[in-house]
Amino acid sequence: LAAKKTIGDGVLIAVDWGTSRLRAWLVDSAGEAIADADSGDGIGRIEGGHEAVFERAVAAWPRLPAIMAGMIGSRQGWREAPYVPCPATAADIAGGVIRFTTERGRPVAIVPGIAIRSGDGDVMRGEETQVAGLIASAPGFAGTVILPGTHSKWVRVEMGAIADFQTYMTGELFELLSQKSFLRHSVADAGGDLSTSPDFALAVRRTAVEGLPFLAGLFPVRARQLLADVKPADNLPYLSGLVIGGEIAAARATGRFDAGDDIRIVGARSLARAYKQALEVAGFDAETLAGDRLVLAGLTDLARSIRFLPEKTG
Amino acid sequence: LAAKKTIGDGVLIAVDWGTSRLRAWLVDSAGEAIADADSGDGIGRIEGGHEAVFERAVAAWPRLPAIMAGMIGSRQGWREAPYVPCPATAADIAGGVIRFTTERGRPVAIVPGIAIRSGDGDVMRGEETQVAGLIASAPGFAGTVILPGTHSKWVRVEMGAIADFQTYMTGELFELLSQKSFLRHSVADAGGDLSTSPDFALAVRRTAVEGLPFLAGLFPVRARQLLADVKPADNLPYLSGLVIGGEIAAARATGRFDAGDDIRIVGARSLARAYKQALEVAGFDAETLAGDRLVLAGLTDLARSIRFLPEKTG
Repeated sequence: LAAKKTIGDGVLIAVDWGTSRLRAWLVDSAGEAIADADSGDGIGRIEGGHEAVFERAVAAWPRLPAIMAGMIGSRQGWREAPYVPCPATAADIAGGVIRFTTERGRPVAIVPGIAIRSGDGDVMRGEETQVAGLIASAPGFAGTVILPGTHSKWVRVEMGAIADFQTYMTGELFELLSQKSFLRHSVADAGGDLSTSPDFALAVRRTAVEGLPFLAGLFPVRARQLLADVKPADNLPYLSGLVIGGEIAAARATGRFDAGDDIRIVGARSLARAYKQALEVAGFDAETLAGDRLVLAGLTDLARSIRFLPEKTG
Repeated sequence: LAAKKTIGDGVLIAVDWGTSRLRAWLVDSAGEAIADADSGDGIGRIEGGHEAVFERAVAAWPRLPAIMAGMIGSRQGWREAPYVPCPATAADIAGGVIRFTTERGRPVAIVPGIAIRSGDGDVMRGEETQVAGLIASAPGFAGTVILPGTHSKWVRVEMGAIADFQTYMTGELFELLSQKSFLRHSVADAGGDLSTSPDFALAVRRTAVEGLPFLAGLFPVRARQLLADVKPADNLPYLSGLVIGGEIAAARATGRFDAGDDIRIVGARSLARAYKQALEVAGFDAETLAGDRLVLAGLTDLARSIRFLPEKTG
C-alpha cells in the first residue's frame, strides 16, 4: 500500500458547481482525490461573489489551479463558458474551456456546456463532464448514457464523442405533480425507496410497455385513490413510475435508444436504481455508475487536456 | 314576439355551483332563463354555510325550488350526491339526484356525478349535466363530446347515454408548466388568443400529427428561446399547443375518438375555439357549443325528470 497522501500532494482543485451545490476535490498528480469539500453555496443560492464563496469553500487547501464544471459556467455563473456544438469529443470540450486568473491570483478553468443547434435544439451543462469521465474511464464505450435528475439527459455516445442528447424535465415534473397539482391530495411520501413498490413497476409497465400515453395516465392517479382505495403512499410510487416510464417511452419513440443498446445510468444511488428498475420492467438491462466519481474523472481528464494536470503516465 | 317575461314567471332556479363560481338562472315553465346571477362563491372559496351563501345569491328572486349541479354535490359540497355508474342516461342521472328541504323551507335537488369503476376509474361532476343538456337538445347525437378546462373531459355519447369518458389534467398542467416550472422563464403572455399563433399550430402538429411524445416536447420550449431566439410571447402558444396537442394524441391513442366521429366541443368561447383549431390541425372537424347554455338545458331537462319542472309540451 502506498503511503497516505497529504494535502501537500495536491496539484489541482476539481469543482462541480451547480445550481444548488458546490463540491470540490483536492486532487494529486495521478488524478486521485486527497480531500473533498461540499457546501450548499450553489450558484442559485448565492448573489454573485463567486471568488469569495469559492475561497471560503477551499480555504483549508493550498492555492492551486481550479477546474470547474456545471452552472458556474452559465450566463448566471461566475464567467460564461459558451456552449460547444454537438457532436463533441472530450477534446472539443477541452477546446471550449475558458481560463482566467482570479483577483487573488488563482488560475481558474471553466468547462463549457454542449448545445444542439439543429431543430429546436437542446443544451447540457455539467453532464458533459460526467460523460467525459465515462468516456475517459471506458474509452471503447458506445451506447446510451442516462443522467437522471431534475432535468434528465439521454446521451448517445459514439466513437468517443457525445453524438446526440435529449433532455426530459422528469424530476421537475414529478415535483410539480406530487406537490403542486391537485394530485398532491392523492399521494403521500411514506419514506423508503419508491422504485421497489409494485405500483412503481405497474405504472412503468403501462407507460413504457403497454403504451399508455403519459397524459392519459395522470388523472387516474386521483381515480385510483378515490375509487379503487389505493393508498396515497402507494400512489406516490405509481406517479413516479408514470413520469419515469413516460420518459423511457418517449426516449424510445424518438429513437434515443433501442434493444441491444449498451445503457449506463449515471447518478445518485437511489435515482439510478429507480431508472435501472424501470428499464428492467421495460425489458432493458442497464449498468449504474456513481455520478460523483465520473464528474471527478471528467474534470481530471479535461484538466490534463488543458495542462492543469500532467499527462497520465503508464 | 312574446311579451317580456318577469320574475313572477319563474318556476325554478337552476344552479351551476362549482369550485370557483356559482351561477344561477331563474327559469320559467318552458325552461327559459328569465334572469341570471353570478358570484365568486364557489365551494372552494367559502367555508360551508352553503344555504346562506345561496340565499344571498338569489335574494332578488322568489323562493322557488332549486336544482344544482357541480362540485356542490361532492363530499366537500353542501350535500353529497353519490356518483352514478357509467354508462348513464339522463334518466340514470335523474335517478341519482338527491333532494332535501333547506332550513328556510326551500326544496333543493342536487345532481350526482358519474363514475367509471372499472380499471383505474374516472369521475366527472358537473360535466354530466352539460352532456345531458346536449343529449336533450340533440337526441340523436352519437359521438365525442370534449369539455376542455382545468380537467378536460372526453365523453363518448351513444344511444342517448354517456357511454364512456376520460379526464385529462390539461388546463392544470398548462398552468403549472407556464407559471411554476422553469419553463416560466421562456414564456410570456402577450394577451390575445393563443390558438391563432402559428406556434400553437406547430406544437399541435408535432404532438397530434407527427407523434412527438408530450414529454419529449417540453424541454425544447426552453431550447427554442435559448438557441432559436423564439420570443417568450411565441413560446406560450407553443406550450399551449403541446398540452392540447398532447391531449388529442393521447385521446386518440387510447381509442377515445377516431376519424369520422362527430365531435362537439363544449366550453367557454376562447378555449372551445383553441380546441377546434387544434383538432383542425390534427385533421378533425368539430362543432363548438356554449357550455353555459348546455348546463342550463341539462338542469332543466333533469328538473323535468324529477318533476321540479312540468313536462315539456308540444
